[in-house]
Amino acid sequence: MKHELEPFFNPKSVAVIGASRHPKKFGRVVFENFLRPGFKGKVYAVNPKGESVLGEKCYKNILEIKEPVDLAVIVIPSEFVSQAVKDCVKKGVKACIILSAGFSEIGNTKGEEEIAKCKGKMRILGPNVIGIYDAYSRVDTIFNPPHKQGRPEKGSIGFISQSGAFGAAMMDWASSEGIGLSRFISIGNRVDVDEVDLLDYLMKDDKTKSVAIYLEGAKRGKDLFKKLKEITKKKPVIIIKAGQTAEGSHAASSHTGALAGEAQVYSGVFKQTGTIEVKEIEDLFDISKALAFQPLPKGNRIHLITNGGGFGVLATDAIIKNGMTLSELSPETVKKIKASKDVPKYAVINNPIDLVGDATSARYKAAIESVLEDSGVDGIIVTILLQLALMESNVVDVLVNASKKTKKPIIVCSAGGQYTDIHRKLLEEAGIPTYSTPEQAAKAMKALVDYAEIRNK
Amino acid sequence: MKHELEPFFNPKSVAVIGASRHPKKFGRVVFENFLRPGFKGKVYAVNPKGESVLGEKCYKNILEIKEPVDLAVIVIPSEFVSQAVKDCVKKGVKACIILSAGFSEIGNTKGEEEIAKCKGKMRILGPNVIGIYDAYSRVDTIFNPPHKQGRPEKGSIGFISQSGAFGAAMMDWASSEGIGLSRFISIGNRVDVDEVDLLDYLMKDDKTKSVAIYLEGAKRGKDLFKKLKEITKKKPVIIIKAGQTAEGSHAASSHTGALAGEAQVYSGVFKQTGTIEVKEIEDLFDISKALAFQPLPKGNRIHLITNGGGFGVLATDAIIKNGMTLSELSPETVKKIKASKDVPKYAVINNPIDLVGDATSARYKAAIESVLEDSGVDGIIVTILLQLALMESNVVDVLVNASKKTKKPIIVCSAGGQYTDIHRKLLEEAGIPTYSTPEQAAKAMKALVDYAEIRNK
Repeated sequence: MKHELEPFFNPKSVAVIGASRHPKKFGRVVFENFLRPGFKGKVYAVNPKGESVLGEKCYKNILEIKEPVDLAVIVIPSEFVSQAVKDCVKKGVKACIILSAGFSEIGNTKGEEEIAKCKGKMRILGPNVIGIYDAYSRVDTIFNPPHKQGRPEKGSIGFISQSGAFGAAMMDWASSEGIGLSRFISIGNRVDVDEVDLLDYLMKDDKTKSVAIYLEGAKRGKDLFKKLKEITKKKPVIIIKAGQTAEGSHAASSHTGALAGEAQVYSGVFKQTGTIEVKEIEDLFDISKALAFQPLPKGNRIHLITNGGGFGVLATDAIIKNGMTLSELSPETVKKIKASKDVPKYAVINNPIDLVGDATSARYKAAIESVLEDSGVDGIIVTILLQLALMESNVVDVLVNASKKTKKPIIVCSAGGQYTDIHRKLLEEAGIPTYSTPEQAAKAMKALVDYAEIRNK
Repeated sequence: MKHELEPFFNPKSVAVIGASRHPKKFGRVVFENFLRPGFKGKVYAVNPKGESVLGEKCYKNILEIKEPVDLAVIVIPSEFVSQAVKDCVKKGVKACIILSAGFSEIGNTKGEEEIAKCKGKMRILGPNVIGIYDAYSRVDTIFNPPHKQGRPEKGSIGFISQSGAFGAAMMDWASSEGIGLSRFISIGNRVDVDEVDLLDYLMKDDKTKSVAIYLEGAKRGKDLFKKLKEITKKKPVIIIKAGQTAEGSHAASSHTGALAGEAQVYSGVFKQTGTIEVKEIEDLFDISKALAFQPLPKGNRIHLITNGGGFGVLATDAIIKNGMTLSELSPETVKKIKASKDVPKYAVINNPIDLVGDATSARYKAAIESVLEDSGVDGIIVTILLQLALMESNVVDVLVNASKKTKKPIIVCSAGGQYTDIHRKLLEEAGIPTYSTPEQAAKAMKALVDYAEIRNK
C-alpha cells in the first residue's frame, strides 16, 4: 500500500537502537522479535558498545549501516533519545518508533519538544509506547516476552491503544481466545503520529475490517471528528473512552498527560460520527469481532434458538433490553420445522425455539436452516450448550455450512469450560463470533444492527 | 448435619433406578458417577432387565435390595416414574431425585400430581432436573459426562438453579476457572423440595459461605421472602432472576412452567430481604466468590494500585460508577511509600497508585502493605498486568501474605492470556478473587460494600 505510514508496518529493513545482550532488557526482547521467522526484512542491531547481540553484528551508530533503513526502533534511556533521532534523520530513516519512557508523562515536555524540532520529514510513533505488532508482516516491537504475552493470530481487527499496558493485556487475551488482529499500534505520547493518522492508514488497509480503539483523550479533536466520519462509512469503529467520570479523567491526565475532557462531549462526537462507543473493556473486542466477521442485518428482528430453556429466557431478556425485537416465524416455517423427522413434538417452536436438552446436531440443522429462510427474521442467536450428553461436535459444521449459505448474521452463545472452549475456537476460526453469555451475544448483535443503520444513513 | 434434606447430600446408600449398560443413556452416566473413588457410600443398580451394569449386580426392582437405601435416583421414561416412586416409598427410601423429564414442562401436570399423591414422607427433588452435585460427598447425579462438563472443586459457594442446563454450563465454567462449589442443586419442576427448603439447608451448612441462585419464578413467594430475610443475616445470597422483561417472563413460562411474575416485584423482594440481585450471568459467580472469600469492608473508600495507567483510569471510572469513593492516603502513608527503596520517584503515589510498567513484586509489596495500614482505606483493588517484562510470579506471594495480615478486602484485576491465567488460579486458590476486567473487580467490591451494609442493619 502507498501510504506515508507504510514503513511502520512493512519495512524492508529495521534498526533496533538499544539492542542489548542482557536478557531482561527491552532492547533484547525487541531485537529478538525481529529475528523470528515471521519477519521477512533485514534487521540491524545498534548499540554504542558495539558488542554482537544474539550472534548478530552490532553497529555503534545507525550511521555506520551502509544499506538504507526504513524503520528505526529506539529503546534507550530518555536522555539519549534526541541524539538518536537526529542520527536517524541524517540516515534518511522513514519511520521511527520511540519506545523509551520518561517524557511528558512525567512532566518532561522539553524532551518531547526537542524531538519534534529535529524530526524533519521522518514520522515518529511515541515516545512512551510499546509500539507496533503487525500480525501479517510480523513487525513486533512489543517488549513483553512471548511467554508472558501471547501474540494474536492474523485477523481482521485493527487496534489502536493510547495505553501500552492496556494494549498488551488485550492482545494477550485475544491471543488466548483465538481472536485475530491485523495491526496493533500503541500511540503513547504522540509527538507526531496520532490516532487520526492511524485511522487513515487502517481505513485504506485491506486486511483491516473493523477498528477497535482505546482512547483517553483526542490530540486533534476536529480532525478526529472528520476522520471518524469518513472511516465509518467504510468500516466500523468501536471505541472505549477511558475517563468516563471526572475522577477517571483526572487519573488519565496523570497517565498519558492527555486532557481527557468531558465524557459527554466525546459520546456526542462518537454518536454524530457513527462510531460505536462501548463502556466496558470486555465489549471492545467482543463487538469488534462480530463487526469484522458477520454480514449486517436488514433490521432488528432476531430469532433465538437454544437447547437450554434457561439460556433462552436470558437471551430473550437481553434482546429486549438491547432494544431489538423477537422475530415471528411465518406459519409455513413453523410447519416446516415441525414436519422435520429430526424435531420431536416436545420441542418448542416459538421464539425462543427450545430444542430442549436432548437436542442433536440434526435438530439444530432443521431449525437453523428454516429460520434463516424466513423473511421475517433479520438475524439469529444460537445458544449451544455442549455439555449436554447428546450434543455432538458436528454442530460446528451445521453452523459453518448455514453461515456460508446465508446473508444474515449468525451469533453463537456457548457457555462452559474446556470442552466448550475447543468448539468455540473452531467456530471463531470459521468466522462465527461466539460468546459465553447471552448478554454478550445480544450486545454483539445490537452492534451489527446499529452499524447497519449507520451505513444506511 | 441433622437436617431432613441430609440424605440428598450425604446418603450412606444410593439406588440408581434406570442404571443402564448403554454408554449414551443418562442412567449409565449417573451410575458411573457413583462408582468413582470420591463417593464413599454404597451404590445399587436397578433396572427391570436385571442385566449387570459395568460389572455390578443389578436389581430388577428397588424392593429386591435387602439393605436400607437412603437416596434413590430415578432416571426412566416418565410413564414409569410414579410406580418407581411408590416402590421407593415402600422400601423406606428417605430422599428421591427424579431426573426424568416429560412432566409439567410439556403440560403433563397429571403425572406430577400422581407423584405428589404417593410420595408419603419421602422427600422428592424434581422431576425434570439434573439433580445434585456435592463436591464434598461426591453425590453426583449430573448426566452430562465429565469429559463434556467439568465438575468444580471443593469450595464455598452453594448453587441452586431452576434450570438444569444453566446449572450445568455454569458448573462447567466454574470448573475450568478453578472456582469451587460446596453443593449444586437443580430444582426443576419442584413437585416437593424447592428453593426455600434448600436455602434452609444451605444456611445451616458449614461448607457453604455464600449462595448463588438462578431463579425463573418462586414457588412459595411469602416463604421465600421469610427465608431470604433469615439467611442473609448469616450468609450472602446472590440471585439472578431470569424473565426480567415481559418477553423473558413469557419464555420462562414455557420453560419450567413457572409464573415468572413482575421483575420489579421480585427486585423489591430482593432489596427488602438483603438479597444481592445481579442482572448478568457473568456476575453471579464473580460476586459469589468475592462474598465467599473476602472479609467485609467497613466503608466504601477504595484504593487502587496498578502497574498499567490505562487500567487505573478504567478502574477509577468503575469505582465511581458503582457508587463507591476513592480513598485518600494520609500524608504519613504517602511519605512511607515514597521512602521505600523499592519505589522509584516516577511512580505516582495517589489514587490510583501507578507503580508504572517496570513495577516489580517488591514495589507492589511496599505499596500494598502501607495502603492496607491506612485507616482511611476500607478495601483495595490491585491491578497486576503480568505480561509486563519485569513483573514476577512472586507477586502472588505478596498478595497472599498481605491478605493473611489484613481484615480489609483485597480484590485483584489481572487481564491477559495463558500466563496470566496460571497466576489468576493461584490467587483464587488462596482465596483472593481475581477478575479479568476493572469493571468486574469493581462490581465484586461493590457487593462486599453492599453486603457489609446489609449485615450492619
